[in-house]
Amino acid sequence: MSIFRKKIPDLESKEDYSDILEVIENGTITTVPDFYASSSHCGIRKWKDDICLIYTPKKSTASAVFTTNKFKAAPVRIDQDQLKRSRDIRAVLINSGISNACTGKMGLKNANATIESVSKELNIKKHNVLVSSTGRIGKQLPMEKIKSGIKTCAKRLSLEGGKYAARAILTIDKNPKEIAVRIKQPAQGITIGGIAKGSVMIEPDMATTLAFITTNAKVSARVLDKMVREAVLRTFNCLTTDGCQSTNDMIVVLANGQSGIDISNDKDMQESFHNALYYVLDCLAKKVAEDAEGATKVIQIRVVNAKTKDIARNIGKKVANSLLFKTAMYGQDLNWGRIAAAIGSDGSEIDQNKVDLYFGDELIMEKGMGKDFDDEKTSSMMKEGFLKFRIDMNSGKYNARVLTNDITYDYIKINAEYKKQR
Amino acid sequence: MSIFRKKIPDLESKEDYSDILEVIENGTITTVPDFYASSSHCGIRKWKDDICLIYTPKKSTASAVFTTNKFKAAPVRIDQDQLKRSRDIRAVLINSGISNACTGKMGLKNANATIESVSKELNIKKHNVLVSSTGRIGKQLPMEKIKSGIKTCAKRLSLEGGKYAARAILTIDKNPKEIAVRIKQPAQGITIGGIAKGSVMIEPDMATTLAFITTNAKVSARVLDKMVREAVLRTFNCLTTDGCQSTNDMIVVLANGQSGIDISNDKDMQESFHNALYYVLDCLAKKVAEDAEGATKVIQIRVVNAKTKDIARNIGKKVANSLLFKTAMYGQDLNWGRIAAAIGSDGSEIDQNKVDLYFGDELIMEKGMGKDFDDEKTSSMMKEGFLKFRIDMNSGKYNARVLTNDITYDYIKINAEYKKQR
Repeated sequence: MSIFRKKIPDLESKEDYSDILEVIENGTITTVPDFYASSSHCGIRKWKDDICLIYTPKKSTASAVFTTNKFKAAPVRIDQDQLKRSRDIRAVLINSGISNACTGKMGLKNANATIESVSKELNIKKHNVLVSSTGRIGKQLPMEKIKSGIKTCAKRLSLEGGKYAARAILTIDKNPKEIAVRIKQPAQGITIGGIAKGSVMIEPDMATTLAFITTNAKVSARVLDKMVREAVLRTFNCLTTDGCQSTNDMIVVLANGQSGIDISNDKDMQESFHNALYYVLDCLAKKVAEDAEGATKVIQIRVVNAKTKDIARNIGKKVANSLLFKTAMYGQDLNWGRIAAAIGSDGSEIDQNKVDLYFGDELIMEKGMGKDFDDEKTSSMMKEGFLKFRIDMNSGKYNARVLTNDITYDYIKINAEYKKQR
Repeated sequence: MSIFRKKIPDLESKEDYSDILEVIENGTITTVPDFYASSSHCGIRKWKDDICLIYTPKKSTASAVFTTNKFKAAPVRIDQDQLKRSRDIRAVLINSGISNACTGKMGLKNANATIESVSKELNIKKHNVLVSSTGRIGKQLPMEKIKSGIKTCAKRLSLEGGKYAARAILTIDKNPKEIAVRIKQPAQGITIGGIAKGSVMIEPDMATTLAFITTNAKVSARVLDKMVREAVLRTFNCLTTDGCQSTNDMIVVLANGQSGIDISNDKDMQESFHNALYYVLDCLAKKVAEDAEGATKVIQIRVVNAKTKDIARNIGKKVANSLLFKTAMYGQDLNWGRIAAAIGSDGSEIDQNKVDLYFGDELIMEKGMGKDFDDEKTSSMMKEGFLKFRIDMNSGKYNARVLTNDITYDYIKINAEYKKQR
């Protein structure tokens, strides 16, 4: 069975994945053999750990996806250069509280100094290290604090450190987001772990999404890249909370080869790994959606039978980002005209006379025209915490699932009154 | 002097236009000679007039700009066909309360029946008539009410009717939006009038922008089209309140030639007319921005020295539609990192190391890097009702000015709790 090739399941699908993988209880990035992690409070933030380190002593293969924002933070720019030099990444240093974005040459210099400090403490090459930041834009990193934090993190590295790293990367997410899975045949012996930080605001200023994935698979950079890109496209890149894009987003996958199982030339094992990677990223993305600040509802928009992959994803995102739609959902008002208007406002070539819209299983609009539907049933469904919409384009075979949340008074409060809250 | 060719002035600019035009006190669409209008309450809405008619007995030239939404309401689709048949439009019938969108073949039939009814009552050809609707999506027009409303409107047509039409097209705009100007030399004798309805929500469901412009100029369809498109692009198409696009937007310009002054082949007169048309549309767009429901601030974003016209406008709109930015403005928090992130999230090729950002006259970010600025001064400026940002791309010679507003608790209230308010 392939999760990845078939239609993407509903978010709350009870589908059984037990034939392809096993979810490990309390799993995290250090559940994967030979991965160590740690965190520390270096003083960027008032309370809570604000710096953490992920490390493997093994020769590794890394793959990463970065923000497409043109205002790239210094760590993003530096990491892109690092990965051109070497894919053998063995350590990632992450700080929260300051994003090191819009910081000019000094910002680049500080990101490089961070790398140098990590490489020294861990006795690895500079090209083995990546850095990542999330937080307020426009401030320089306090390098003395960072360097002292790196020293502490290096000393604290442990096989139990994943859960500390998972917490240190958070800003105001309510819950840490971690998972690990063990793959079954044909890639038995491979595990994948992951941690993520929500894009959902807000402290301090930016909606940054970070995710760090570890695995003990052995895999070539080329094969890993392909799988990571596609899995990210269908999970994290189909998640939107407020349509804003960060200067610092990154998803990094580290494969340390500890299992000795090389999947680079085995299609079946690749499929097995790809499924599990998709599963891990999808779970982390769901956790981000569920933890959206101020939100009262998770909303799933499935676009099916679109002419192209891009159209499916773009239309799903257009609806998911419509402020009129998101506020109506908060008000528990099935104001489906706002969905139709959002679909139509996408740049894609679409035929309004083909589009069907379902809320749950209820057909609301057929071939672009409003239907008389069961008002009592839909009113009751609108009260639930998870809302499902399906848009059938009836024009092709491509599908996408986009996750989002409602926009509430609390969203405004958190974002408008941030200064007062500090 | 050309308003249009030079840099677009600030919204609140005290610039003197008195050498090119005179604003007529209490001016509206029927201030222009030989234009008649009227309104009536036909019963779509509980209170307030919900149908209106604009009419000129003269042979006319019409030009229109419609929504680019793929879910076009029936009146939009019918009008686009009408204008292919003839540009001699002498009457426009507008209803509020029901948008006639997502209404299938019955919706098209009803829009056609409306045209037929208007042509009969006014004794003009069907191809002389346009229709326009704004309101809830997915409901059919109550044709008996519409027909009876048309009869009443036809009887009530008068030279004072402009102000009634200006009110009948509104949904929950707080104020009517009307203007008329008299052009000075070299196109003396020409007047332009206009009315508009805000895109700013909410009753019933859609953010529809409508504007109807009258003039007694004589002008060819080709020349009028060119001027209308450019003026709309730089005014109404640079106005955004929540980033949502309606199925029903339209701006219609009717030129009845009453002045006898033919500007079709006179470049100087064209420039004079173009300036005045821009001024009229700009004033109406400003009135829409100022009347944005729930808003406490009007925000002007000027993008200057961009590589292309499109980049200037797109970046302005990207910032104007950033929910993080708009909520920060409501909270009076100059959270400029959110502006940088919004600029960078546009698809345009830009160089972050060239971009300067000003709040008022205060330089906030220079060459993509944060500056130490006067916190006291900017905090005090943030309290004002009109906020001005300037983004200097330092990469070309194109400029745009985008108007928007903050997003507030009231926006959420109006849009989430619409059902409860009815």
